[in-house]
Amino acid sequence: MSSAPFPTVDQAALFEFLLRMGDNALILGHRLSEWCGHAPALEEDIALANTALDLIGQTQLWLGLAGEMEGKGRTADNLAYLRDATEFRNVLLVERPNGDFGKTLMRQFLFDAWHLSMLQALRSSADKRIADIAEKAAKEVAYHLDRSRDLVIRLGDGTAESHRRMREALDDLWPYTGELFIGDAADEELAAAGLGPAPESLKAEWDGVVGETLTEATLKKPADGYMQRGGKRGVHTEHMGFILAEMQFLQRAYPGATW
Amino acid sequence: MSSAPFPTVDQAALFEFLLRMGDNALILGHRLSEWCGHAPALEEDIALANTALDLIGQTQLWLGLAGEMEGKGRTADNLAYLRDATEFRNVLLVERPNGDFGKTLMRQFLFDAWHLSMLQALRSSADKRIADIAEKAAKEVAYHLDRSRDLVIRLGDGTAESHRRMREALDDLWPYTGELFIGDAADEELAAAGLGPAPESLKAEWDGVVGETLTEATLKKPADGYMQRGGKRGVHTEHMGFILAEMQFLQRAYPGATW
Repeated sequence: MSSAPFPTVDQAALFEFLLRMGDNALILGHRLSEWCGHAPALEEDIALANTALDLIGQTQLWLGLAGEMEGKGRTADNLAYLRDATEFRNVLLVERPNGDFGKTLMRQFLFDAWHLSMLQALRSSADKRIADIAEKAAKEVAYHLDRSRDLVIRLGDGTAESHRRMREALDDLWPYTGELFIGDAADEELAAAGLGPAPESLKAEWDGVVGETLTEATLKKPADGYMQRGGKRGVHTEHMGFILAEMQFLQRAYPGATW
Repeated sequence: MSSAPFPTVDQAALFEFLLRMGDNALILGHRLSEWCGHAPALEEDIALANTALDLIGQTQLWLGLAGEMEGKGRTADNLAYLRDATEFRNVLLVERPNGDFGKTLMRQFLFDAWHLSMLQALRSSADKRIADIAEKAAKEVAYHLDRSRDLVIRLGDGTAESHRRMREALDDLWPYTGELFIGDAADEELAAAGLGPAPESLKAEWDGVVGETLTEATLKKPADGYMQRGGKRGVHTEHMGFILAEMQFLQRAYPGATW
């Protein structure tokens, strides 16, 4: 990727990419916010809520840029609150249910490790607006990864009970990690235009970080078997409808209501 | 209040006072966290969650000091998660249900106006630990008040529908404001030792801020009729049990569990 002037790129592919970044942050942020007031300690409550806030803040930036780029007058709020499930482009991993505290942290770690590599690559995007958002978000996500990595190690290499729970969480979530690294036509467009990395190119670094962390956590890395996919192109699991029902209720019940 | 060396004060009164400060922040923070992921716009979601986070952070400080002072080895988490409703010392105002967005903001404004005066007075507490917490918290709460005051005005002086809702919220919450200014023996102890203000002394400033704001919001200040009270001495409404059931579930179901 170069710092050449803003290149020509298929606008639909760019819009798709921005939705993917924004929707990953939005749906994971919403999942984390479900913990608000329910975490096992005040400190954890604050930490999870802070992560959720960072992600919702990033959502505003990505979806804001998507709306601007689209040029139809849609705002970040419009995109967040007024799309149907099939129009969402988040990976299936982030819509997985929270489960217990350990599973929430395992999901977070697996996503954070990808998220940080992605954002670091996007810092040299040929589009300065993308590079600027990535620069800001990468700082936040570096901290998310520090924290989730640390907790995965502590809980994996903890008591027999915590180890068992983390092993189950890992096995359960692993099939949802493959989708992060599978590119499609939109990704190829972006990569060719120097706007973002090819998803496949992030795999080696992710394997390294995840592999080392799991070893330290005394957890066995699952074999790469069948991998779930679909979210990136709008084919979601049954959970997505429930998430949107909760998240969009106010805007849907009172369209455009501001009273 | 002077900056004299730490004065002798009835330890039970001081503990009571610290619980009151901590529990107000904890219960209101929990109420606000119920909005996480449900606010009418991304920006409001972030703002409410940020306020909740500030309050939970303040809870840690007040309850941490309470536990330290008590000297029985109880931490802020122990005090937050392992007390029964009758041991909580928050005013009834903060346990009122969220209602709609406007009612949540009206409750916030009525509390913030008191909270800021209280914290500003506590900055000159004869106990440096209290003064330090108040100094930090007052900065956060000044911002909370700016925001809730602004929204009360915008919604009160908004559409016919928003005005009606804010009027109802105000009438409904008003009887819960009296308790903020009623002192008891513990308050007298604290005031005599120069540790905190007499609750009654904060009333004039609160009346001024609230009066001006309501006028600007085109809302009529309710008459001071019968005032609810009880929370400060552990007599709570039926809502408190539900709040604690939700907040304390994890710690109660798995006592001391850390796995």
